[in-house]
Amino acid sequence: MTVTYSLKVSRTGTFTFPRLLFMWKGSVYKLLYKELLIYLLLFYALSLTYRFALTGAYKAAFELTCSFFKDSLLDAIPLSFLMGFYVSLVVSRWWDKYVCIPNTDEICQVFATFIRGSDDVTRMQRRTLVRWITLSSAIVYTSVSAPVFRRFPTTKHLVQAGLLTEKEHAMFENMPTPHVKWWLPLSWSCNLVARLKAEGKIESGGTAVIQKIQLHRASCATMMDYDWIGVPLVYTQVVTIATYTFFIAKLFSSQFLESSTDLDIWFPVILVFEFLFYFGWLKVAEVMINPYGGDDDDFEINYILDRMFQVGLLIVDNCYDLVPDLEKDRYWE
Amino acid sequence: MTVTYSLKVSRTGTFTFPRLLFMWKGSVYKLLYKELLIYLLLFYALSLTYRFALTGAYKAAFELTCSFFKDSLLDAIPLSFLMGFYVSLVVSRWWDKYVCIPNTDEICQVFATFIRGSDDVTRMQRRTLVRWITLSSAIVYTSVSAPVFRRFPTTKHLVQAGLLTEKEHAMFENMPTPHVKWWLPLSWSCNLVARLKAEGKIESGGTAVIQKIQLHRASCATMMDYDWIGVPLVYTQVVTIATYTFFIAKLFSSQFLESSTDLDIWFPVILVFEFLFYFGWLKVAEVMINPYGGDDDDFEINYILDRMFQVGLLIVDNCYDLVPDLEKDRYWE
Amino acid sequence: MTVTYSLKVSRTGTFTFPRLLFMWKGSVYKLLYKELLIYLLLFYALSLTYRFALTGAYKAAFELTCSFFKDSLLDAIPLSFLMGFYVSLVVSRWWDKYVCIPNTDEICQVFATFIRGSDDVTRMQRRTLVRWITLSSAIVYTSVSAPVFRRFPTTKHLVQAGLLTEKEHAMFENMPTPHVKWWLPLSWSCNLVARLKAEGKIESGGTAVIQKIQLHRASCATMMDYDWIGVPLVYTQVVTIATYTFFIAKLFSSQFLESSTDLDIWFPVILVFEFLFYFGWLKVAEVMINPYGGDDDDFEINYILDRMFQVGLLIVDNCYDLVPDLEKDRYWE
Amino acid sequence: MTVTYSLKVSRTGTFTFPRLLFMWKGSVYKLLYKELLIYLLLFYALSLTYRFALTGAYKAAFELTCSFFKDSLLDAIPLSFLMGFYVSLVVSRWWDKYVCIPNTDEICQVFATFIRGSDDVTRMQRRTLVRWITLSSAIVYTSVSAPVFRRFPTTKHLVQAGLLTEKEHAMFENMPTPHVKWWLPLSWSCNLVARLKAEGKIESGGTAVIQKIQLHRASCATMMDYDWIGVPLVYTQVVTIATYTFFIAKLFSSQFLESSTDLDIWFPVILVFEFLFYFGWLKVAEVMINPYGGDDDDFEINYILDRMFQVGLLIVDNCYDLVPDLEKDRYWE
Amino acid sequence: MTVTYSLKVSRTGTFTFPRLLFMWKGSVYKLLYKELLIYLLLFYALSLTYRFALTGAYKAAFELTCSFFKDSLLDAIPLSFLMGFYVSLVVSRWWDKYVCIPNTDEICQVFATFIRGSDDVTRMQRRTLVRWITLSSAIVYTSVSAPVFRRFPTTKHLVQAGLLTEKEHAMFENMPTPHVKWWLPLSWSCNLVARLKAEGKIESGGTAVIQKIQLHRASCATMMDYDWIGVPLVYTQVVTIATYTFFIAKLFSSQFLESSTDLDIWFPVILVFEFLFYFGWLKVAEVMINPYGGDDDDFEINYILDRMFQVGLLIVDNCYDLVPDLEKDRYWE
Repeated sequence: MTVTYSLKVSRTGTFTFPRLLFMWKGSVYKLLYKELLIYLLLFYALSLTYRFALTGAYKAAFELTCSFFKDSLLDAIPLSFLMGFYVSLVVSRWWDKYVCIPNTDEICQVFATFIRGSDDVTRMQRRTLVRWITLSSAIVYTSVSAPVFRRFPTTKHLVQAGLLTEKEHAMFENMPTPHVKWWLPLSWSCNLVARLKAEGKIESGGTAVIQKIQLHRASCATMMDYDWIGVPLVYTQVVTIATYTFFIAKLFSSQFLESSTDLDIWFPVILVFEFLFYFGWLKVAEVMINPYGGDDDDFEINYILDRMFQVGLLIVDNCYDLVPDLEKDRYWE
Repeated sequence: MTVTYSLKVSRTGTFTFPRLLFMWKGSVYKLLYKELLIYLLLFYALSLTYRFALTGAYKAAFELTCSFFKDSLLDAIPLSFLMGFYVSLVVSRWWDKYVCIPNTDEICQVFATFIRGSDDVTRMQRRTLVRWITLSSAIVYTSVSAPVFRRFPTTKHLVQAGLLTEKEHAMFENMPTPHVKWWLPLSWSCNLVARLKAEGKIESGGTAVIQKIQLHRASCATMMDYDWIGVPLVYTQVVTIATYTFFIAKLFSSQFLESSTDLDIWFPVILVFEFLFYFGWLKVAEVMINPYGGDDDDFEINYILDRMFQVGLLIVDNCYDLVPDLEKDRYWE
Repeated sequence: MTVTYSLKVSRTGTFTFPRLLFMWKGSVYKLLYKELLIYLLLFYALSLTYRFALTGAYKAAFELTCSFFKDSLLDAIPLSFLMGFYVSLVVSRWWDKYVCIPNTDEICQVFATFIRGSDDVTRMQRRTLVRWITLSSAIVYTSVSAPVFRRFPTTKHLVQAGLLTEKEHAMFENMPTPHVKWWLPLSWSCNLVARLKAEGKIESGGTAVIQKIQLHRASCATMMDYDWIGVPLVYTQVVTIATYTFFIAKLFSSQFLESSTDLDIWFPVILVFEFLFYFGWLKVAEVMINPYGGDDDDFEINYILDRMFQVGLLIVDNCYDLVPDLEKDRYWE
Repeated sequence: MTVTYSLKVSRTGTFTFPRLLFMWKGSVYKLLYKELLIYLLLFYALSLTYRFALTGAYKAAFELTCSFFKDSLLDAIPLSFLMGFYVSLVVSRWWDKYVCIPNTDEICQVFATFIRGSDDVTRMQRRTLVRWITLSSAIVYTSVSAPVFRRFPTTKHLVQAGLLTEKEHAMFENMPTPHVKWWLPLSWSCNLVARLKAEGKIESGGTAVIQKIQLHRASCATMMDYDWIGVPLVYTQVVTIATYTFFIAKLFSSQFLESSTDLDIWFPVILVFEFLFYFGWLKVAEVMINPYGGDDDDFEINYILDRMFQVGLLIVDNCYDLVPDLEKDRYWE
Repeated sequence: MTVTYSLKVSRTGTFTFPRLLFMWKGSVYKLLYKELLIYLLLFYALSLTYRFALTGAYKAAFELTCSFFKDSLLDAIPLSFLMGFYVSLVVSRWWDKYVCIPNTDEICQVFATFIRGSDDVTRMQRRTLVRWITLSSAIVYTSVSAPVFRRFPTTKHLVQAGLLTEKEHAMFENMPTPHVKWWLPLSWSCNLVARLKAEGKIESGGTAVIQKIQLHRASCATMMDYDWIGVPLVYTQVVTIATYTFFIAKLFSSQFLESSTDLDIWFPVILVFEFLFYFGWLKVAEVMINPYGGDDDDFEINYILDRMFQVGLLIVDNCYDLVPDLEKDRYWE
């Protein structure tokens, strides 16, 4: 479920952004608290070992190790730079991934406008077209979105959900190709439209209808593409390695050493802060790299699918040829 | 109300940008003075406590704390880097959010061009189409913009404003769906156009009219999307946490310590400057993250709505078939 | 007047870019020399006061102030980072602002292609359409560009320039709306086209003509938008404050102190260089933030307007139906 | 073969990104292990020479060299900055290079919709059009992609693959032009469509078909362009020189010197880490700069070609006029 | 001539990028070796003067100057930051400048498809249209590209090249306007198409042909725009000043001083490296800022022009109505 906070930031005030810190769902705390606990555990394990268990040469070796990391590593890599560019890439793809989710309201309205008639056959034609359009989206969604896949693990489940009839299911399964067949219902749709045109049922606007179906097809194809061609693995690995190595080194370099004249406050406040900062930034990427998933802040594909089908049927059927009686408006002169 | 200063920067001169510093509305001072006062209060509370209240070990502990933050924190995080990328994202979305506000002048002109006739019925048809287009925008605006929502908290208020008739209101309320129904007036519009086409009133150009309505629908949908899918909460939280923690640490690290050989000027001039810099930058993001709101620099959605309706009616009615008598122009040979 | 230097950088050679340093018009020197003189004046005022006027405790206080700024401020803010992102935003808007200036050649050619006839009435129709298109641009330009506004401060001046006839002027003034009326000539144009279509004068292509007029309308609207919705004031203020404060602090921190062992060269060469660098960068933003203005490097809107009108008339009138006699070309086999 | 890991990052959990570190195919380790081994070999060669072979003045000279690089070079260039911008450019071109790969499903559907008839001649016409469209892509692919070139080193191989008939091959070879002839099959296609239109076989929609072929042509042309106009060589060279010089200097500056008081751990852990970081980042660019190649993470052009042809034939032939019987759907009221 | 190296980077291997370092054409060495020689000459002039000519106070003053620059300048400006953003802007314009070069294959195909007939008159019409389209491009190219200007310094040269006939040349010269007349052949083309439509020679598709010509016109206009409106001079100057001043200061700060304990290797290896790095980066901008020029890596406009004309004639003439005999393909069932 997307976490929407736009109303909370409608007016800029003294506590606009700070107030957001008290949201839990989709928050950096919810995403990070487990990692932080594990990390602190490791930190204290080392710390207590050093303070109470180690003696003599071992203690000295530990201290040398800590200084070694303190001096050398921290300037060695410009982590924030890499992260900035990487997150920037992930964010721009994240929005593209939202935009390519097909919006079927327009296509349904086009069906309602150009396929005229209130008889049962015509209604069935319009409703079936809506169903096929929805069906092709649903098949694409099962490929790219884990929650939708869990809902429709097989095409049989699409039949149960009323998106596919038994006969269609058979035709679908018999089509001889190893590739994903999300385009098949769109083929059916175009063929139906072509028949309606041949029958003279669609007088003008046939091309417009075909074009809308093509646009829908393009949206679906783009979704498949974004899923198939991700950010190259090597990029994600470099970022991950950099962040994790940085914090492993920090485990040592942040230890309070007995030789130090600093304040020994037992709790690594700076380290925790850095952890929230860098891992929070990395979590931004993790949340956004596959927004079709089941995270708090991912797009609600299942909801989108249901709304698409319901509103689509409303538009082509309930609202078909529905026009309120015209009246003179208040500003009529 | 948008703060427009483009005329002031028309010519580049010695004092072009400095002059902008004396604007109050929409300014960084107006946005920040409360935060700055609170922050200075905290700073002086600490400072005076340290100078006059603390003694002995407490004083030493305070000094240690201050040095601790001075040495460690300030290099720990590259705040400006994170901020740069974050603000860059918010700014690019901010402009997209402006661009997607539907401009209805074109669609109204298309109505005026293709739906011909000066009789009352045809005028009513054109005016009603304008009203429905405006109505769909208005419903979208109430969802995304707090000021518009305050103006039209219920659909009843749309009736009072003359955007919806009583009968239409009943039809609107009876449509059985839990989703926002901004698309319903657009459905009515398409249906009316389809009827006019069937009646032969729109000879050519029917498809062009439908396409324009579809473009309007796409704009409205994009506005809804930008509201629904915001910058992921975790990103905003990371930026906010980073900035606030940075300045909490600065409360200590900027204190004048008695052991210091620096100039003790009692007023933390550098700190105030940094505060203006970093919080000003953050305020840029706060102002722009929801530009449909009620800030000084937000888009004036209510004004846009009123202009859209008024100019729309002018175009389809007052200017209908209005062509000045043709004359030879001055450069005629 | 735009400063064009693309020919000078056609070939990359040893002195390609350095040669550009000797251009004066639109140069960083021309834009900055006044600021630099004022700044150096302030610098020497302080320097001479310190060297010759101050004594004892005052001198010591001055020195402390200088060191204070030297140590603290310069690392306090990442000016270049903020500037980089800000200028990047301004530059991308700058080009968008150029692109949205309507190019009317295409629309005029469409008039010439689809409105056929060499008689005086048809010529008048085509020429009037060109005039109205140009007129709508001119009205938009007066809103967004100071030089064009100085040329046409009132609509009366448009009449004098031959862009508006007296009768049209009366109709224009009588249209009852408080909003800018740049769209009115476009309404006239569409209405005229609709009449021509009804008269059968435009057989096919009527929709193409209307679409071109709509594209022109969209360009004009975009220009108005870019003028109305500028970079939020707070962003420009933060950048300006940061740069000015930085250089005020530099006034002190760059002073040669008597206790210093550095070379005392009396002229702050590094400071001047930094000034050119940072203020030059800021000037890039100042020049580009309103490119419709009267700077050396701004777009020549008045020229664009004149060319648009002249070439438009040429296309629809002088070149109407002009086709050279066809001959076999040299490569004919 | 593209390495797809989107399902693995569907949910953000504690070990989402770390788990990716254990993938081998397309990984940073697979790409870098050879380089790293060579680099370590050089490092130890130097190290052991210094420790055991060198004496006296030579040892001192070596130590001076090491310190020289340590002090000077490492701050001399902002490698990460250059790399950030360069990789950013390469990444944005990489995605554009994917997007421009033509998707022929739409064009095939258009053939199936507008070229009606189930007789053998019409089937042959549709199938031939699909084959020609695929053929033009194939010729483009052989120009831009090494794996496809290895598959079809000559046009004879296209004949063997069934994409070109013998007669067509002769016509293809006889066309007198030195330029790549990928556009020729598209010319044939347009000519065939024009004939079908003249014969009245395509009643409406002829323009739509031509437009689709033009879009396909544009995609192919864009692929050729991206191959022809790469990132300027000088940019890639600057980045490469910077990275390699940096690590050559590091060979010296990372040596443990006997005069040092640091921990001598014999293994240059920091250096290895930096190597993975910077060279990993550079490898991102190397992998993405020519994504039509044969790397683990490159686009599978051969697979795309095969799928295109197979699905294309399915759409125009097997699915031609295929419409399941219409039934009332489950939500029928 | 563009330097294409995409095949060399097809597979990522150990020496993929390093191998590119051995290319000379378009390389950073070829672009920089003269600058580097001059720079080294200056460096050694100073160095030898200091070492052998200067004595006493002069030597001390020189040393002070060197330290002065060493301490102060190098942190004073973030050169890499400015360069990063500047080069990023130039690169994005560079690609836009390539994309806007008109591709005439599509328009020629449209001529061949919609203007039917194999008689000499029709062939002449199609060929003439191709010639005029090419001609308008050629005129634009002479304005923006130095190599094309050298080829066609006057319109007479266009006549000699067979792009313009004598009669057309006269008409062209007589058109009374001071502005560049590249749009005139496009006007002729549209007028010819309009006549063909009136004659019934183009039955359908007339609008499609006009639209293609308009797209070509838009491409040409964009090329003119990119030439006319360059990156503002002040931006290029700031970058140039920054780089040159930086390296002038480096001339001093990189001198080996006798008081130094560093290694005196006589050759400023670090400096040369920095020079290659920063000037190489600047050269990227110099090469890309006017890619229509005659650099190694610039677009080959003359080649593009010739190919355009030749392939255009092939498409409309040799390939006119050329369709291979249809056969059953290998996968026919």
